[in-house]
Amino acid sequence: MSERTEISEIGEFGLIGRIREMAYHGNKSTIKGIGDDAAVIDNGDDYLIVSTDALVENVHFDLGYVPLRHLGYKAMAVNFSDMAAMNGIPQQVVVALGLSNRFSVEAVEELYEGMRLACEKYGVDLVGGDTTTSRSGLFISVTVVGKVAKDKVAFRKGAKEKELICVTGDLGAAFMGLQVLEREKQVFQANPEMQPELEGKDYIIQRQLKPEPRLDVVQELARLGVTPSSMIDISDGLASELLHLCKASGLGARIYEEKIPVDRMTYEVAREFELDPITVQLNGGEDYELLFTMPQEDYEKLRNHPDISVIGYMEAGSTAVMVTKQGNEVQLQAQGWKHF
Amino acid sequence: MSERTEISEIGEFGLIGRIREMAYHGNKSTIKGIGDDAAVIDNGDDYLIVSTDALVENVHFDLGYVPLRHLGYKAMAVNFSDMAAMNGIPQQVVVALGLSNRFSVEAVEELYEGMRLACEKYGVDLVGGDTTTSRSGLFISVTVVGKVAKDKVAFRKGAKEKELICVTGDLGAAFMGLQVLEREKQVFQANPEMQPELEGKDYIIQRQLKPEPRLDVVQELARLGVTPSSMIDISDGLASELLHLCKASGLGARIYEEKIPVDRMTYEVAREFELDPITVQLNGGEDYELLFTMPQEDYEKLRNHPDISVIGYMEAGSTAVMVTKQGNEVQLQAQGWKHF
Repeated sequence: MSERTEISEIGEFGLIGRIREMAYHGNKSTIKGIGDDAAVIDNGDDYLIVSTDALVENVHFDLGYVPLRHLGYKAMAVNFSDMAAMNGIPQQVVVALGLSNRFSVEAVEELYEGMRLACEKYGVDLVGGDTTTSRSGLFISVTVVGKVAKDKVAFRKGAKEKELICVTGDLGAAFMGLQVLEREKQVFQANPEMQPELEGKDYIIQRQLKPEPRLDVVQELARLGVTPSSMIDISDGLASELLHLCKASGLGARIYEEKIPVDRMTYEVAREFELDPITVQLNGGEDYELLFTMPQEDYEKLRNHPDISVIGYMEAGSTAVMVTKQGNEVQLQAQGWKHF
Repeated sequence: MSERTEISEIGEFGLIGRIREMAYHGNKSTIKGIGDDAAVIDNGDDYLIVSTDALVENVHFDLGYVPLRHLGYKAMAVNFSDMAAMNGIPQQVVVALGLSNRFSVEAVEELYEGMRLACEKYGVDLVGGDTTTSRSGLFISVTVVGKVAKDKVAFRKGAKEKELICVTGDLGAAFMGLQVLEREKQVFQANPEMQPELEGKDYIIQRQLKPEPRLDVVQELARLGVTPSSMIDISDGLASELLHLCKASGLGARIYEEKIPVDRMTYEVAREFELDPITVQLNGGEDYELLFTMPQEDYEKLRNHPDISVIGYMEAGSTAVMVTKQGNEVQLQAQGWKHF
């Protein structure tokens, strides 16, 4: 090898693209490989869905303020969220863990206690794993296996022109929770006798430390008779995920700032941090809400739904624009992660 | 938490035992959770099998002498081997990768090229993954999904008294290959102008760098009409794996030193390193051969098979003994890993 291309030159999505090109595909049962929230495998009566996500210390979490029990819970939740993003249900999970001797048996048990809580809540069995040494930080690599009915599966592709764009819950809270935790950590480091000022910020901190996969929405959509034409979970921020739906579906999108759901606490804390709340809503990650499209004729089924907001519609083209409260158009940019 | 128990106090198997006790199990479809080579999930007409294994830099591999392409191949092979150990076939695989900025795009491509070679050879599709930053070393966490017929599945439990104990291939080669590579690395570090002396050691080095899962044996056993009553793959050494079969089946075992298959090169290089070859055969890991039991009446189907050796039989009790060439009895001890 004489060439050396830095990963930062091609970015996360560039790297994934190269990996996707190299992946072997010879199995008839593989319906969808790399490039969605989960792989989709033909399983006779239904589809099997499989997804993997790793959490790495000091990249995805800081044990300075993340309790191990919350971390275990979150490691499960973010993987279950990928099943929700396919309109499916998780059933079994396996966990590969890299540990250093810094961790005691009791610490490992705390971590698994958090995993167990999430598994119990969502009815998912922890069926296997690998526990190994890591010379440096902790890593948790989780793979979840689930099911989805063949006529209910939702890919990133599949959105059609004029279809409505919907999001669940509210956006930006997990990001603001992280900012608060980071600030309190710095205060504590400067003066260990200071008590953390987390009072009244429970909601956004909870959203950061203990996210919930929207498996309730999967059930709710089934109850309402709505099958999303495309869907993705919001792990990297609304803007980035919407661009994924656009690209996969070969369309553009138009959303409206005033329609994007935000919690009041998120808004206020963003202001306190001198951040523009809409930037936080668009680009703050880790909310694990669902973003989906559906035909206009389903609108009546969801209007006035307390937990689902219609924020815009798909249109021809390849760009996603947001119409601001002032009526200006802003083109959305993908952020993705920039860990490298 | 006031108590602190070091992981080294309870060991790998103690830790896995605690994790198994904490794992949530509420799903009717889960046939077998933690405690075998793969989880077994009821899937209607057949069983789904799922296994995960992580490889961590400087714990499982040393990039000083392991080419990335071989590493990618091996990461797949060791996971496919877990499917073989259930008497099943791998079909899809997902990969979570932790990378530091030390790795170029070309290096990542080398790694995936090795994965692709293994996937292509064994007909397994790479269907998903997660690529993330690791602040220190490389880690590769692989989860494989496969299938096995319900009447063919082989667990660790299931061996019966007087049944025959069989192993495939030969043992100890991968361990001796590692010793040679380690020695040459030290020579090179002492004097970078020295050429490595690997000539004539291709077989054992290949066994270390590029192990093959014994999926051919799964096919061969089906062809011969042999269904193993219990099975495991030999990743940690024959002694350790035999004790797993004994414990899971509630039996003891008796094997014969003279029957344990060894390659001539393994034997000679062990002598060169002043190691007892039988110790290497019993405790050298990473051979990825299969160890299984079968009823005595199947003996005729396998006798004189060039690649399968009958090494002893299951008996009452809970200890595994080896009868030496001199006729002495030695009780086998589990080694397991001791990374902590």
